[in-house]
Amino acid sequence: MSDPFELDPRLAADTFVVGETPLSQVLLMNDARYPWLILVPRRCDISEPFELSEADQAQLWQESMRLGEAMKARFAADKLNIAALGNQVAQLHVHHIARFHADDAWPGPVWGVGSAVPYSDAALDALMDELRNGLQQSLGLTGASHE
Amino acid sequence: MSDPFELDPRLAADTFVVGETPLSQVLLMNDARYPWLILVPRRCDISEPFELSEADQAQLWQESMRLGEAMKARFAADKLNIAALGNQVAQLHVHHIARFHADDAWPGPVWGVGSAVPYSDAALDALMDELRNGLQQSLGLTGASHE
Repeated sequence: MSDPFELDPRLAADTFVVGETPLSQVLLMNDARYPWLILVPRRCDISEPFELSEADQAQLWQESMRLGEAMKARFAADKLNIAALGNQVAQLHVHHIARFHADDAWPGPVWGVGSAVPYSDAALDALMDELRNGLQQSLGLTGASHE
Repeated sequence: MSDPFELDPRLAADTFVVGETPLSQVLLMNDARYPWLILVPRRCDISEPFELSEADQAQLWQESMRLGEAMKARFAADKLNIAALGNQVAQLHVHHIARFHADDAWPGPVWGVGSAVPYSDAALDALMDELRNGLQQSLGLTGASHE
């Protein structure tokens, strides 16, 4: 049976696929200003987290907490921002953004502040390798089947 | 034994206490532009949701999902925004904001857009009554012990 999940094209355009957890696709936002990862549960026609089944809700929360914890430690972030907004892209996705007192948007939220700074190829390769290795255990991350 | 939890004074200044769930204080943001409720787990020295115990994490997620669901239905919102940011107030608090295609900040996030419009006394009384009744069952809401 084919997987009916399709990533929203606007999310796809702004991100790279890091891999997949048991529930979600893990995306890296292409903005070198902030370490910024997004969880997208591989479920169809879901816009709000409370529309997921109870089991999926619990799984998403677990994945979100483990990802947030790993990011805070890895990037020595001053604060994690975790948010399900979805005003522009209805497909349920949960932002995880490592924030720093010296970052461009501090202490405001990052959305709508300035323009994304794309990663260089070398920086992207190094970060993706590290994320894929670092999140294997804590998130059960595996290679993306969509690549 | 006295409850060592104290609400951050900046949160207290901007909100009204709706009541308490098993884990959290429930606050109404004093901004009539958006139905905006905040969950503050009654735990000390916690800034990130993943710093809570596993049991508290599960409880917070449950409360957040039930609150979001109730708000979306009650306010016929186009979208819920759910976010733990905490850049300005470190005490863990989770925003739940009912958003509408016609609201002041759509489709951006609400933070930092314009100025809060305080509720009138009559509107506040009516909304608080309704929230306290409406959230009793879904959230196990009881009267606030801090009032």
